[in-house]
Amino acid sequence: MIKQLSTLDQDFEPQFEKLVARDASVDPEITRRAEAIVQDVAARGDEAVIEYTNRFDHLNLKTMEDAIVTREEMLQALETLPADQKQALETAAKRIREFHEHQLEKGWTITDSYGSVLGQRITAIDSVGLYVPGGKAAYPSSVLMNAMPAHVAGVPRIEMVFPTPGGERNQLVLAAAALAGVSRAFTIGGAQAVAALAYGTKTLDPVDKIVGPGNAYVAAAKRYVFGRVGIDMIAGPSEILVICDGKTPADWIAMDLFSQAEHDELAQAILLTPDAAFAAEVQKSIEKLLPTMPRKAIIEKSLANRGAIIVTRDLLEACKVADTISPEHLEISTENPEQWVDHLRHAGAIFMGRWSVEALGDYCAGPNHVLPTSRTARFSSPLGVYDFLKRTSIIHVSEAGAQALAPVADVLARGEHLIAHATSADYRLKK
Amino acid sequence: MIKQLSTLDQDFEPQFEKLVARDASVDPEITRRAEAIVQDVAARGDEAVIEYTNRFDHLNLKTMEDAIVTREEMLQALETLPADQKQALETAAKRIREFHEHQLEKGWTITDSYGSVLGQRITAIDSVGLYVPGGKAAYPSSVLMNAMPAHVAGVPRIEMVFPTPGGERNQLVLAAAALAGVSRAFTIGGAQAVAALAYGTKTLDPVDKIVGPGNAYVAAAKRYVFGRVGIDMIAGPSEILVICDGKTPADWIAMDLFSQAEHDELAQAILLTPDAAFAAEVQKSIEKLLPTMPRKAIIEKSLANRGAIIVTRDLLEACKVADTISPEHLEISTENPEQWVDHLRHAGAIFMGRWSVEALGDYCAGPNHVLPTSRTARFSSPLGVYDFLKRTSIIHVSEAGAQALAPVADVLARGEHLIAHATSADYRLKK
Repeated sequence: MIKQLSTLDQDFEPQFEKLVARDASVDPEITRRAEAIVQDVAARGDEAVIEYTNRFDHLNLKTMEDAIVTREEMLQALETLPADQKQALETAAKRIREFHEHQLEKGWTITDSYGSVLGQRITAIDSVGLYVPGGKAAYPSSVLMNAMPAHVAGVPRIEMVFPTPGGERNQLVLAAAALAGVSRAFTIGGAQAVAALAYGTKTLDPVDKIVGPGNAYVAAAKRYVFGRVGIDMIAGPSEILVICDGKTPADWIAMDLFSQAEHDELAQAILLTPDAAFAAEVQKSIEKLLPTMPRKAIIEKSLANRGAIIVTRDLLEACKVADTISPEHLEISTENPEQWVDHLRHAGAIFMGRWSVEALGDYCAGPNHVLPTSRTARFSSPLGVYDFLKRTSIIHVSEAGAQALAPVADVLARGEHLIAHATSADYRLKK
Repeated sequence: MIKQLSTLDQDFEPQFEKLVARDASVDPEITRRAEAIVQDVAARGDEAVIEYTNRFDHLNLKTMEDAIVTREEMLQALETLPADQKQALETAAKRIREFHEHQLEKGWTITDSYGSVLGQRITAIDSVGLYVPGGKAAYPSSVLMNAMPAHVAGVPRIEMVFPTPGGERNQLVLAAAALAGVSRAFTIGGAQAVAALAYGTKTLDPVDKIVGPGNAYVAAAKRYVFGRVGIDMIAGPSEILVICDGKTPADWIAMDLFSQAEHDELAQAILLTPDAAFAAEVQKSIEKLLPTMPRKAIIEKSLANRGAIIVTRDLLEACKVADTISPEHLEISTENPEQWVDHLRHAGAIFMGRWSVEALGDYCAGPNHVLPTSRTARFSSPLGVYDFLKRTSIIHVSEAGAQALAPVADVLARGEHLIAHATSADYRLKK
């Protein structure tokens, strides 16, 4: 059902390498097709977007106007939700907004001894495009998590695109968009939607940055338009790693592993524990609970192919193994999790203690659920307000400052054989 | 010599579009060759790196050990520099360090009404690779600007690679590396050096992020390894845009335009002024000063192909045009530049007032000279300490917090048909 390894195994290293190896290859045929669609939309605009949308999503749109969902419609979707869903969405939105408000940054200036002013100005990006996948992967929580940081940053224009195969509009997605400050939405998707956001069409002005998850075509299109617009990371399959001292109920840990495994057959769920008896208990829980899961087929494949229970010498070794994996989600399901957290340098989010189940972070704890996957937590961060702010350097050199600095610039510019640089500095020197 | 446009011209729009159009195409043959080299180095390690280095740089290295430059050698290079160069480099390093120290960020936590602790931990990346181009483009100032933010962030391992065609080691580059906290350097370059940094070899452990400019092969290799490691933006040609009220000496402005044009035939230098007589004066200064420039051939081509003097209705219109261009460097060479700065939303760095010549920013004012090019200032920022820090979300839910949040997560997870998510949250509810 799920591999069991031990760091004491003779062949632990190669087994571990095999477990964490990833196939990051990109299908060149998908790339080629996505790029052709992008180029076509860049050339023909709305007309091409409508053609692809009608073809792929089995719609019958006449113009791009037919694809527009206004903010009024989003608010209406929110108002007409069942009471429990409306309240849950509002609670989540409030907590996510409050957490992200702490990420707001202020510009600053410093004045040096010559009276020159140097600083960093911080402003929001003008416009953002949010991609929301269609069908079963249309997650309202992702709408909150992607749009709210942009909204908190102060981005004035947030355009959402979401394919509606067969014409069905997910009301939870629209309600989440209402709460997260989305300005307008279009019922378009795929590479054609990414192209419309990046290049603009008659109906849709181009945006400056595109975020949000999508299928392989969407990922290929985002890669292609990167540079023209900003993009977020291209996410890999979801990952959970649990470090447990053996004193959390085994059923809890089994279900925590399931909660990532149910996303995707390629998702990775790993338990590290120094307690071999507990490892066996979790195995039993997995076998017992799996048949009760609606997504049991996906969970089973994910656990069989990419999951593992690894018995370690002690909790410190578990931390070392976890750091090598640098997982997206990391649960420290132990007593006094504080004592381990400093040993864990690389993770997207760290869930501390037995009550901090990942699902709370996925929906409503407050921090973002868009997190670095595939070991990129070594160098990248959760999606945040900072991703929708940009910095501009401010350099206001005084006359006295120019007299002091021009000779320095002159020497260094001449050392680089850049004589116009040196001369432009020298011109500011008083004779 | 340089195009003159006016916003009053009937055909200003198409002329302007032509002026700012960019060829962002990538040579597929260079991409193919770079990727083959990366794959070879990933497979064969040191041996492949040495082969390519000896072939492309006409060296005769036996092992990777021969390519190592130790920190002691860097410090020695600093000590043996001519006094004026040593002093200039030290002044620049000190000012750059001090400015970047203001970019350090602190983690934070908040405690909600249930006693749950939520926060953001900020730590430095473990290791960084710095690419420094060889030959004429080996700029010590770029070493300071790329390595210092990593050093200030607290990155413990900074590896530098710099090709030394024919074996000549630029002593200014090594001295700058000493001042900027570089741990070790290798005399290797090209796609093979990028591959060694990304995949690691027997001699060189892989790094987590690669920064620094390079030629088309280096750019292609960085693009290829992106995702496995972090990379900085792939920079386009340099850009300067000057807004002038007509009261700065025309020679100063002409030389400021030269200072970007001398970098590269594809560099872009543009002057915006509402004063037509001043525009004509700058034209004359350009003609007068160009013959005195060692790089006059490059400057002439850059100004003729990509440069322009644009006469605007007034300074406010100049700001609007500048914002469309979103330049890398923007000089506001006017009285009271403060009154214009808020109209300028998109630029890498804004140089305020007549004394703030761009060359001071390039070398020693303090802010970084690695800036967003090709209109990417709409969504991206100067290189900074933040590029070498990463954030980790901390989620420590209390027992009371779990009781309050699990029902919210349950409703939202069921709305997304993710039953394992819902169940894992429910398990934390006290019966």
